[in-house]
Amino acid sequence: MMKEMLENVKKQCPLVHNITNYVTVNDCANALLACGGSPIMSDDIEEVEEITSICGGLNINIGTLNQNTIPSMYKAGMKANELSHPVVLDPVGAGASALRTNTAMGLIEKLDIAVIRGNISEIKTLALGSGTTRGVDADISDRVTRDNLQQSVAFAKEFSKRSGAVIAITGAIDIVADKEKAYCIFNGDPMMGIITGTGCQLSAITAAYVTANPDKPLEAAAAAVCLMGVCGEKALERMGEDDGNSSYRNYIIDAIYRMTGEELEERAKVEIY
Amino acid sequence: MMKEMLENVKKQCPLVHNITNYVTVNDCANALLACGGSPIMSDDIEEVEEITSICGGLNINIGTLNQNTIPSMYKAGMKANELSHPVVLDPVGAGASALRTNTAMGLIEKLDIAVIRGNISEIKTLALGSGTTRGVDADISDRVTRDNLQQSVAFAKEFSKRSGAVIAITGAIDIVADKEKAYCIFNGDPMMGIITGTGCQLSAITAAYVTANPDKPLEAAAAAVCLMGVCGEKALERMGEDDGNSSYRNYIIDAIYRMTGEELEERAKVEIY
Amino acid sequence: MMKEMLENVKKQCPLVHNITNYVTVNDCANALLACGGSPIMSDDIEEVEEITSICGGLNINIGTLNQNTIPSMYKAGMKANELSHPVVLDPVGAGASALRTNTAMGLIEKLDIAVIRGNISEIKTLALGSGTTRGVDADISDRVTRDNLQQSVAFAKEFSKRSGAVIAITGAIDIVADKEKAYCIFNGDPMMGIITGTGCQLSAITAAYVTANPDKPLEAAAAAVCLMGVCGEKALERMGEDDGNSSYRNYIIDAIYRMTGEELEERAKVEIY
Repeated sequence: MMKEMLENVKKQCPLVHNITNYVTVNDCANALLACGGSPIMSDDIEEVEEITSICGGLNINIGTLNQNTIPSMYKAGMKANELSHPVVLDPVGAGASALRTNTAMGLIEKLDIAVIRGNISEIKTLALGSGTTRGVDADISDRVTRDNLQQSVAFAKEFSKRSGAVIAITGAIDIVADKEKAYCIFNGDPMMGIITGTGCQLSAITAAYVTANPDKPLEAAAAAVCLMGVCGEKALERMGEDDGNSSYRNYIIDAIYRMTGEELEERAKVEIY
Repeated sequence: MMKEMLENVKKQCPLVHNITNYVTVNDCANALLACGGSPIMSDDIEEVEEITSICGGLNINIGTLNQNTIPSMYKAGMKANELSHPVVLDPVGAGASALRTNTAMGLIEKLDIAVIRGNISEIKTLALGSGTTRGVDADISDRVTRDNLQQSVAFAKEFSKRSGAVIAITGAIDIVADKEKAYCIFNGDPMMGIITGTGCQLSAITAAYVTANPDKPLEAAAAAVCLMGVCGEKALERMGEDDGNSSYRNYIIDAIYRMTGEELEERAKVEIY
Repeated sequence: MMKEMLENVKKQCPLVHNITNYVTVNDCANALLACGGSPIMSDDIEEVEEITSICGGLNINIGTLNQNTIPSMYKAGMKANELSHPVVLDPVGAGASALRTNTAMGLIEKLDIAVIRGNISEIKTLALGSGTTRGVDADISDRVTRDNLQQSVAFAKEFSKRSGAVIAITGAIDIVADKEKAYCIFNGDPMMGIITGTGCQLSAITAAYVTANPDKPLEAAAAAVCLMGVCGEKALERMGEDDGNSSYRNYIIDAIYRMTGEELEERAKVEIY
């Protein structure tokens, strides 16, 4: 399944419109290229509908949202919905400010979102109206563990049912769920949290995956999450004694570029619930 | 010729004012430093005239243009013209939205542009009012090949004549032309399209080259285009089996940093028409 | 002393709110993570107070200031002051435009700033209302040397006395001073000027250091400056014959990630005045 998802991206080279933050935007563009997609970044209200129209999918990331870009997110999202393009939402820092929480919630309400991808604190904020977001990173008290996995899966399925979106919660254990089925993914490494933007890159890649696999958003999102985790592991294996988080960042994107469908299948550690 | 152009940049360390996109801006700054120039980025309407005044050249890139930065592009451009500083225009995504096409065309109309550098789809859009821009990448049907080279050169010369700017069309084969003469450059590698921003970096470098070689904009632009192509080749030679597009990005900028006038001359594959 | 400062950052993982430029923002985030801090970037006026409130410190960098972000700088700064969070100011390009000079001076006047970090031209502009800023880099005529060191130290102490902030002037020789005491730091390498953003990274790291060492802003800032210099040296030692400024950038951040308190103490070249 993973193999098919990956190869559809490489074959179709989906063009993804990104309204994203200025912190990790370059990595998002290079990660999209690495996985076989093609990025375009555009956030001005006068052009977002046109740009979305020539693309296959839309990735909305609220990492550095502002008064100018928020209306563009709505406008692009509505156009994407009209054209049946999948929309991915990355609610960076939801819970850290009312502006972030309200924007993410407003987008979920107004738009038909294909995948919401965030850390557990962000997703809890959106699902429960609470959560303990520590800046843009997940709070430790929220973390998904083996002990609370069943409960976390149920939570994700329930939020998927209510929102209509596939829910991708990423962390030490990743959960990708629709209302009926959840993929729990055990790939990845804590080192991925020591570079900025692995989550943002994953959201951009997820947009490429759901665009190239339009009938299978759950499987496509799970494959994207798994890809990121496996590449985090591969990058770690490559680390030399002088390497730190900057080289690690490069190695992850390099690994995405090199990944094949076969290797992804082979290295995937997935349980289905 | 190439050698002289490169060495003038290294000697003079031209300060270049960049109004550019937030996707590739860091790479543009590091590429400018690598080639021997010095970057300053500034796009607020209140300061762009002053910033342009202390610089030697101006690079305008519309990659993430918006309502705030478009007026700054005009204002900085007019000041640069007043001071006889060369202006480079990178019409990223012209043809992908009316905002991009109109902004690029408006800048060409209002300003005296030294060099317009884009891919063939962007340049066709500006020259013919048509083209088939696929996002920010060139459409395959537009590509410059050996078969249509004479015709493409004639097109570039004609657009140069009309616009008054040196036209730099980059792709598998690059054409750098004024109304009378064209350099066709066969350096580079398709891998350069798998990282974001090689075009943006080239435009920034071109601004440094035309600033340091004010009487020879055609030769300066050709040398910059050739430099980028040669560095794309050198970076490829350096790729290890685990390397992907992220390492490739670093290797290209590293190669720009290391390039000498002698090596550039030696590796240049140029035909003059 | 350096060891204690570094280890407090690693222990406390201070969350730093950054209102910074879009050129070097990704490097600032990764440098913060590398040193043991945690970054959040946010510049919209509607959320900056909330974001600052959940953080421990604030880093204001005017590198690409604009009409939207300037009011956010004031608002976040006032909130940080109210909460007794340390504020670091990086007056990028002060002297290059009235907007930059006036914004930096206004922030110093209105806010209680813990550390002002800039190059000598920027600091002279703010202290003397003059200076000869060449874009965003220091002018050669301003440089701190062995010959003018006593005089430069006196200048820094005097400006610290007037402004109430620790003054960190970085260049070939770095001076970190309060009104009574100055650390002169002889670490670093000129190669650090050939990549964009080492200064910006240092300001972000300084914010983490003063946040984690709230009672010792002078020592914390000196340790951060020393860390950056030592890492610039370590990165240089790692350079291979094909490496240029892009690899150097990665190696510096890698070195920050790897640095221990012991190694920092050992390699520090400091004189106290």
